[in-house]
Amino acid sequence: MAELADRLRDAQAGDRRVLARLLTDLEDGTLAGPELGAVFAAGHDAHLVGVTGPPGSGKSTLVNALIRTWRGQGRRVGVIAVDPSSPVTGGAIMGDRIRMMEHAGDDGVFVRSMASRGALGGLAAATWLTAGALDAAGYDPVVIETVGAGQSEVDIATLAETTVVVEAPEMGDEVQAIKAGLLEVADVIVVNKGDRPGADRAARQLKAMLSTAGGRVARPAPPVLVTTATTGAGVDGLAEAIAAHRAARTPERRRVHAAELVRRALANRAIARAVAGPSWDETVAAVADRRLDPFAAADALLD
Amino acid sequence: MAELADRLRDAQAGDRRVLARLLTDLEDGTLAGPELGAVFAAGHDAHLVGVTGPPGSGKSTLVNALIRTWRGQGRRVGVIAVDPSSPVTGGAIMGDRIRMMEHAGDDGVFVRSMASRGALGGLAAATWLTAGALDAAGYDPVVIETVGAGQSEVDIATLAETTVVVEAPEMGDEVQAIKAGLLEVADVIVVNKGDRPGADRAARQLKAMLSTAGGRVARPAPPVLVTTATTGAGVDGLAEAIAAHRAARTPERRRVHAAELVRRALANRAIARAVAGPSWDETVAAVADRRLDPFAAADALLD
Repeated sequence: MAELADRLRDAQAGDRRVLARLLTDLEDGTLAGPELGAVFAAGHDAHLVGVTGPPGSGKSTLVNALIRTWRGQGRRVGVIAVDPSSPVTGGAIMGDRIRMMEHAGDDGVFVRSMASRGALGGLAAATWLTAGALDAAGYDPVVIETVGAGQSEVDIATLAETTVVVEAPEMGDEVQAIKAGLLEVADVIVVNKGDRPGADRAARQLKAMLSTAGGRVARPAPPVLVTTATTGAGVDGLAEAIAAHRAARTPERRRVHAAELVRRALANRAIARAVAGPSWDETVAAVADRRLDPFAAADALLD
Repeated sequence: MAELADRLRDAQAGDRRVLARLLTDLEDGTLAGPELGAVFAAGHDAHLVGVTGPPGSGKSTLVNALIRTWRGQGRRVGVIAVDPSSPVTGGAIMGDRIRMMEHAGDDGVFVRSMASRGALGGLAAATWLTAGALDAAGYDPVVIETVGAGQSEVDIATLAETTVVVEAPEMGDEVQAIKAGLLEVADVIVVNKGDRPGADRAARQLKAMLSTAGGRVARPAPPVLVTTATTGAGVDGLAEAIAAHRAARTPERRRVHAAELVRRALANRAIARAVAGPSWDETVAAVADRRLDPFAAADALLD
């Protein structure tokens, strides 16, 4: 296998097969240890942009439209599509990604799909590594798109420096409630499907909700924009809002973001070490027999 | 504050205020360390039943109906309702829990709501502690109900010994795909709203999907049942399927479950220790300045 530095150079020069292979090696652990640090060090501090929101909000179409805007600015764009695919259905949701094929013939766009199964923290770690490699290969921004609605979005969103939460105007009551957890992590909020009735009203409601919450949240309310991804209306404005969020980055915000990355890596590494350690089986057996509680077991494994 | 043993005894005797206070002390960390082990040791090995599924599937109504069945068997039932509530909206989804008030006057039912925010692994840890305390207080089964659709359900589901995945017949295509991740963790699958057109067809489709996947999944296909929570149709059968799943428990299944609990506890404890340690701030600063990658940082903090 070629040296990592050569592979990174080839990937940066536009060799997509080398990049794809590098990502696979990162995901399956073939590349590990100090080499991870080398990938990280080769990065250009690309803007990591999370795009998330409930099913049916038109996220993928919106990401496609954003890619057009960024490509018009001469930027190479990386996309990590996090799929709740499964061994049971063999990745049923991949059809949704077909739309991304609009950019399939464009060497300036690299799309990587990742399945959201795996160990606790494993997906976040894998996503972070993939984003780091796309950064090292010269893609900027790198978009992390998550499908679904729930804690996974919140988890993945904290990997991104700028998190865009997408809503559609006709969301039902329960979904409205679920998005609540997403509003907390939103740096930019988008009401997509802006050509449908109720879009402007939904945007006003979101703004009102966020301003009411002002006293409870220790940061300025995120902007609320309306887009129609299918026509491109509002998409340039969204790209500007995303850029403005990065431009406003402070040392404190970098620190908070770094702390979250370290927390995720800690969970990942602590589990990997314990599972590979000499007393894993015996400790698990003790918990299974209720001779030991899981927290005491964890402390014993960490010591 | 009374001794833990006294508090557990009072909670078991039916003192709901003592139990509520105990749960709060567990959640906020007032009760920690060896006392966690004492709570765990006081447990009766209650059956932890996870109930999850996409929004709109009627989970809460179905849990209510199951509670009626279990109460009819003379069992005390604990319910942990995991809400994606937020400081922004102040817990918008709580209205959904109002239905649980059907059992509000019944001392044999204890409902605890938990918000799904917090640190990585924090919710799982808190949920597990709450379940352990309800077990120690004599509730059995203890139901863990999660709202939403995504990785959080999969995460929480692994806390439960028996995971029930609820679907509704009219789910759209994207939601169908999302549930794929849930099918993998399902021990019992329920098509609820069985009085709607398409319910039996949905059940047949699910069975076909699961039997096709047979070769790829290292366990027998879970049963697929049809219920109508609003009328109670099929609910006794569901309670039987849940009991049958526990009755079929093997040492291997206990071991797999224990391993997952230990993994979660490891993530939780590793993060708590590192954040409280002497080099946390300095390590985070190095990551923020890109002098260190998060994985090397995690290894340094663990050593």
